[in-house]
Amino acid sequence: MTKASLLALTALSLAAPALANTPSPRPTLEQAADIALQADVDAWDFVEGITTEVGHRQAGTEAEARGRAWAMAWLKAKGFQNIADEPYMMPTWVPGEPGRAEIVSPFPQSFAIAPLGDTASTGPEGITAQVVMFRSVAALQAAPEGSLKGKIAYVSNAMTRTQDGSQYGFAGPTRWVAAGIAAKKGALATVIKSVGTDDHRNPHTGGTDFPEGVAPTPAGALSNPDAANLERMFKRADGRPITMKLVLTPRFLGQTQSGNVVGEIVGRNPSLPPVLLACHLDSWWPGTGAIDDGAGCAIIASAAINVERAGPPLRTIRVLFAGAEEVGLFGSAAYSKAHIGEPIAVGLESDFGADRIWRFDSNFRTTNPELHKKIAAAVARFGVSSGTDVAGGGADLNIVRDQKGALVDLQQDGTRYFDLHHTPDDTLDKIDIVQLRQNVAVWTQVVGILAGEDTAILTGSPVPSAPAVMK
Amino acid sequence: MTKASLLALTALSLAAPALANTPSPRPTLEQAADIALQADVDAWDFVEGITTEVGHRQAGTEAEARGRAWAMAWLKAKGFQNIADEPYMMPTWVPGEPGRAEIVSPFPQSFAIAPLGDTASTGPEGITAQVVMFRSVAALQAAPEGSLKGKIAYVSNAMTRTQDGSQYGFAGPTRWVAAGIAAKKGALATVIKSVGTDDHRNPHTGGTDFPEGVAPTPAGALSNPDAANLERMFKRADGRPITMKLVLTPRFLGQTQSGNVVGEIVGRNPSLPPVLLACHLDSWWPGTGAIDDGAGCAIIASAAINVERAGPPLRTIRVLFAGAEEVGLFGSAAYSKAHIGEPIAVGLESDFGADRIWRFDSNFRTTNPELHKKIAAAVARFGVSSGTDVAGGGADLNIVRDQKGALVDLQQDGTRYFDLHHTPDDTLDKIDIVQLRQNVAVWTQVVGILAGEDTAILTGSPVPSAPAVMK
Repeated sequence: MTKASLLALTALSLAAPALANTPSPRPTLEQAADIALQADVDAWDFVEGITTEVGHRQAGTEAEARGRAWAMAWLKAKGFQNIADEPYMMPTWVPGEPGRAEIVSPFPQSFAIAPLGDTASTGPEGITAQVVMFRSVAALQAAPEGSLKGKIAYVSNAMTRTQDGSQYGFAGPTRWVAAGIAAKKGALATVIKSVGTDDHRNPHTGGTDFPEGVAPTPAGALSNPDAANLERMFKRADGRPITMKLVLTPRFLGQTQSGNVVGEIVGRNPSLPPVLLACHLDSWWPGTGAIDDGAGCAIIASAAINVERAGPPLRTIRVLFAGAEEVGLFGSAAYSKAHIGEPIAVGLESDFGADRIWRFDSNFRTTNPELHKKIAAAVARFGVSSGTDVAGGGADLNIVRDQKGALVDLQQDGTRYFDLHHTPDDTLDKIDIVQLRQNVAVWTQVVGILAGEDTAILTGSPVPSAPAVMK
Repeated sequence: MTKASLLALTALSLAAPALANTPSPRPTLEQAADIALQADVDAWDFVEGITTEVGHRQAGTEAEARGRAWAMAWLKAKGFQNIADEPYMMPTWVPGEPGRAEIVSPFPQSFAIAPLGDTASTGPEGITAQVVMFRSVAALQAAPEGSLKGKIAYVSNAMTRTQDGSQYGFAGPTRWVAAGIAAKKGALATVIKSVGTDDHRNPHTGGTDFPEGVAPTPAGALSNPDAANLERMFKRADGRPITMKLVLTPRFLGQTQSGNVVGEIVGRNPSLPPVLLACHLDSWWPGTGAIDDGAGCAIIASAAINVERAGPPLRTIRVLFAGAEEVGLFGSAAYSKAHIGEPIAVGLESDFGADRIWRFDSNFRTTNPELHKKIAAAVARFGVSSGTDVAGGGADLNIVRDQKGALVDLQQDGTRYFDLHHTPDDTLDKIDIVQLRQNVAVWTQVVGILAGEDTAILTGSPVPSAPAVMK
């Protein structure tokens, strides 16, 4: 497309609302996607708005509730229908006062620390104990039972940047299971090196699990520069004990209400199973939930809007802004439980930041190869390759997995993602609008194709109960 | 130099202490500088050690005193002579508890804030008031007297990265004078956008001045992402008042003791005025004083050590690790007052991080052109050009300026400096050892030449009272 014709299309598209009485030619789906690449404003408006007017949306808190109210108003203003806040109850944990970690001896200084989700409080007076260092979860596992009694375990990891984010699986256990293992061996508390790839004094929080029967202990993540400093201290202490004072004051609030926000672009044939686009609205408290996952909600909602610009889709497109993903997928589970009897045509999720999409995977490459190829061909112009992985869907697509349904993964570039993930630095300025628009363009193209399919996505066979398409 | 000959020289140099009984050929000054470029370990040892074993060194506090004790022990271990801690009294300010800035309405969320040096406390209960935004200090200055009564002034700036750091002069007044101007116009408190070029949730603190007769008010710096968020709020609020709760609890401790640490590589002719190498040992509390200015002290001390490796210099080389630079140059003033009667041959300072040196300036380019040219020729191989600016010396060279003496500036690349300056992120991991070594190499070369000059540096004329050089 030439620049001139693109500008003409853009003018057409943007002028449309103002000239509502004048029927104007609609862009094709391809044109709508191309316009989004150059000029989408809705995705930025969403993520700019929610990070500015709401900020963090810690699951189960009033901040998350304000986020839901804000998102519903936004969806309404953008013309979505059947908007709802579907409530559920969840066990809620809050972080308390800012954490403190101070080396008492031999090298007094303070470290930046954040408590991990679902961990216990030290009490406001804190605890002071000797620190025992482990280079990895494997080294911690090898420590004898009881050997950590009265001690603080420190567990390191070595994570590097990867485009596909795969080192999260490699380093993640430091956060996911180390505190539980250390608690089982008698540790008073656990301190970890952040699971993250940056070098800023901003710890990476996140959830942690304690094994059945093991009471949660206090646990926190040090920023990477502080973890490196602690590791240097062990070298310089040369056997002298390193003593740390730790003050972490999170609280469990018991059951509180959370909710999933849904909204629809109603299709021409609402009796066909809808296309489900998922993201999550909650975010960890230290940041503002820009890349995790304001951007995801921005991308999916904007794609739905752009698809409709090319004309009402055949199938309904439903957006699911899930609640309480970070702290245990409570929203995803509640949605599946409530809607398991309503078939979903295909599920897609955006929850990996706002950087560009580079690969497309589906779970119907072998069962519906024509559709897989059609999508692959359509997104190639955006620099998106066709992958051979079997799409597994994101965390908030429980319902689709529970229904054994069709899934598409639009893999984003995660190189920068774990610099920011679960830190205070998850803020709007980290979003590159050019890459955000590429996401919207690819999603517009893919969702538009999927919403236009009248056969079953997973198999290509006719949808049994579909009535005739409404004109 | 070939790699093989370099390795041989390195081996020679590093082996020397172990083979003290075997006289070994000394490297030339040029060789000593070349070895430093490839293999210096002293500078890293200093900055790694002080950031690990001491951490921040807020002026006038016990942390600064621990820093002095640590530095004296280090100088002693490295063979410096005439090591001293020269005490002086100073008015000391401490930051209190971590600051808090919360938007109360219309968009409740918390911002990262740090108090500015020499500002007042809000009291632990804080203050809550409407925020008035100013795009710049000029805009603030234009506000009518009394117009800020009962308000919090917010003052922005627009700073970009510059190699020579010149935008610090452009943006710096936001921190230096805005709080004073706002206080004069009746403001309860002032909040500024950090004077810094990064996008992390780490505010840039630093000193601020209140005009004669204006009582200090509370004042703090927001991190840049938070400042950007506040500015977006003003747009979205569309005229509705923005109310902020501010809790900043710094305290003035009255007069406390600080000190300057000095040490010498004694020259062959100690009666000649010494070459003075300056840095500062104190640092702002949020970071660990790695780039500001642990690196500077590391570079100058390591250069002195490397010069001596090529044989005792003609002139004494004195290092001055000044105290309390950040909070008002108290160490620099005290040093000048105490030693004004002892002529300094030439002064050089390192206080701009640890990135590479790219330009050499002196204040004797026209008065002693031969020496200027000699130095320029000697540092060219390290990628250092000869500049035409008249060297003004760093903040801790008051004595040289008071004596109207000779000055050399070795200009470092400041592109990254204001990403880190006065923030929690001033940590060891920000130092690139390759660039640190380039600094040491250039300093070794320049200091070695200067310490070998038997004529007055500023003029090239014979030093009047110099006795014959001792052999």
